[in-house]
Amino acid sequence: MRAVVFDGAVKFVDRHPDPTPGTGEALVRVHLAGLCATDLQIARGYMRFRGVVGHEMVGTVVGGSESWIGRRVACEINAPCRSCDLCQSGLSNHCRNRTVMGIDGRDGCFADLVAVPEDNLHAVPDAVSDEEAVFIEPLAAAYQVIQQCPVESRMRVVVLGSGRLGLLVAQVLATTGCELRVVGRNSDTLSACEKKGIQAEHIEQFVPRADCDVVVECTGSPEGVELAIPMIRPRGTLVLKSTCAEAATVNLAPVVVNEIRIVGSRCGPFPEAIDALARKAIDVRSMISRVFPIERALDAFEAAEQPGALKVMLKISTA
Amino acid sequence: MRAVVFDGAVKFVDRHPDPTPGTGEALVRVHLAGLCATDLQIARGYMRFRGVVGHEMVGTVVGGSESWIGRRVACEINAPCRSCDLCQSGLSNHCRNRTVMGIDGRDGCFADLVAVPEDNLHAVPDAVSDEEAVFIEPLAAAYQVIQQCPVESRMRVVVLGSGRLGLLVAQVLATTGCELRVVGRNSDTLSACEKKGIQAEHIEQFVPRADCDVVVECTGSPEGVELAIPMIRPRGTLVLKSTCAEAATVNLAPVVVNEIRIVGSRCGPFPEAIDALARKAIDVRSMISRVFPIERALDAFEAAEQPGALKVMLKISTA
Repeated sequence: MRAVVFDGAVKFVDRHPDPTPGTGEALVRVHLAGLCATDLQIARGYMRFRGVVGHEMVGTVVGGSESWIGRRVACEINAPCRSCDLCQSGLSNHCRNRTVMGIDGRDGCFADLVAVPEDNLHAVPDAVSDEEAVFIEPLAAAYQVIQQCPVESRMRVVVLGSGRLGLLVAQVLATTGCELRVVGRNSDTLSACEKKGIQAEHIEQFVPRADCDVVVECTGSPEGVELAIPMIRPRGTLVLKSTCAEAATVNLAPVVVNEIRIVGSRCGPFPEAIDALARKAIDVRSMISRVFPIERALDAFEAAEQPGALKVMLKISTA
Repeated sequence: MRAVVFDGAVKFVDRHPDPTPGTGEALVRVHLAGLCATDLQIARGYMRFRGVVGHEMVGTVVGGSESWIGRRVACEINAPCRSCDLCQSGLSNHCRNRTVMGIDGRDGCFADLVAVPEDNLHAVPDAVSDEEAVFIEPLAAAYQVIQQCPVESRMRVVVLGSGRLGLLVAQVLATTGCELRVVGRNSDTLSACEKKGIQAEHIEQFVPRADCDVVVECTGSPEGVELAIPMIRPRGTLVLKSTCAEAATVNLAPVVVNEIRIVGSRCGPFPEAIDALARKAIDVRSMISRVFPIERALDAFEAAEQPGALKVMLKISTA
């Protein structure tokens, strides 16, 4: 099958044999897949991943249980063992023995076919197009923010970073009615925010005043945390969404003095994301920068690295 | 009056005039005062403080309201404005215009006399000696840990750092019945823990296994956070107690991936600390390393810097 692998470098290859689904797994023919900052980090060595890259996708089940065959699906990315202490305590997304599609010990979805645990499948309703469905995984991650840090209408909230993730997080936060502002570096993506009715400001213009109840760090850059801390009020919350391969130099004294709470936030609830897309509550279509055929995966990685690039997708098969 | 000031260097001086209490303030004759890691940081330039150092003390009220005169007191260190947004919302310890005794814009207690807002005074009961009363402020800070991060009996908790603050935090946590371990570098202070019935382990022997529900960082060193993170289970909590003047280099990717919560923690509730000392629920007497007369303040600072030093005190006046 055609596949995009990382083995020290990102390559488009003809990969043999095709994946064979294990017990409890389905085989999915991938229609369309999305590039995410984590893929770009993996291309720089993050997680020391080797194998087929990619974890944002929509496809059709072509192998596995009868009840799934032929259905259009999106897939959760964490494959847990269901037996370790964390699985047993309801934290299977944090399973100690988990593999993660295209990120850790399990082939990803930038390929014609991918094997996925059937427990990870979510049917995609007709109201959600393939292009929208590719956003289910990152949009679920955006919904995780308000699951971990309840946001109310009178709160002052900043999303730091106006990239792919920042725009999704901002749209989710906007549904709470909070006093929201996106602070970023790229004028194109900031004006994309404004078009969605969300206040946006360039980081150079924004004066931190230690008055935000919540700041969500979505810069994807190790400097994001140091920029965020002075914005947060005493006892306020910093939600960290970016995973950076590099360490950052951070002075944490203000976190102690102002008793700030920092919350790491990763994968989120697929049903909320699917429902929001089906209701057209979140606009993702305007966030598609470019769609490349899978053969042009290297061009797609390059396009996703460009400042201001939003979602870059790989077209793999027709539905 | 005699006083220990920092003006770029720590000095013992004869300071004129004596402090004059402002409206709502009392004048306190200081009996005994304690040196804390923050004082040592201030001596290195932290907070760019200038003036009389010191914020842990017990003394007798000699000026102010009739109702306070002659009473033995400990003093909260934050002097709030009572009118800013944070004071109005019940966060007066985080007042935007606050001064902090011996730390920020207000003379401290390493002196014969100190002026203190009467709202900050707490009467010290007879059951608490002067030596014990000096621990009220840092013990209150230790109680703040369990106020911000409720600890239950079945939780696995590590206190990282076996210095002054670590030993107080460990004793407070021990009262919850949790599965507690102090991890530190100094064999003397680690055996002091064991004498109190608290398990202790040298950092070189301790293998982080991402299985602690809570880690309380009390090392006073910028490296503490990086040591703590691998100890914490997914969705676990890191409580930061150390304020370090220096920035640390930290890789925060595991905080995101494991959805760890980090909670900055500073000053705490005096009544809990006074009550615990009166009930002899916390042993602090064994934590007194040395007591110096105020004239020998420079020796006291040096003694407090020694590895394994616990509480060093300045004797200022007899009660």
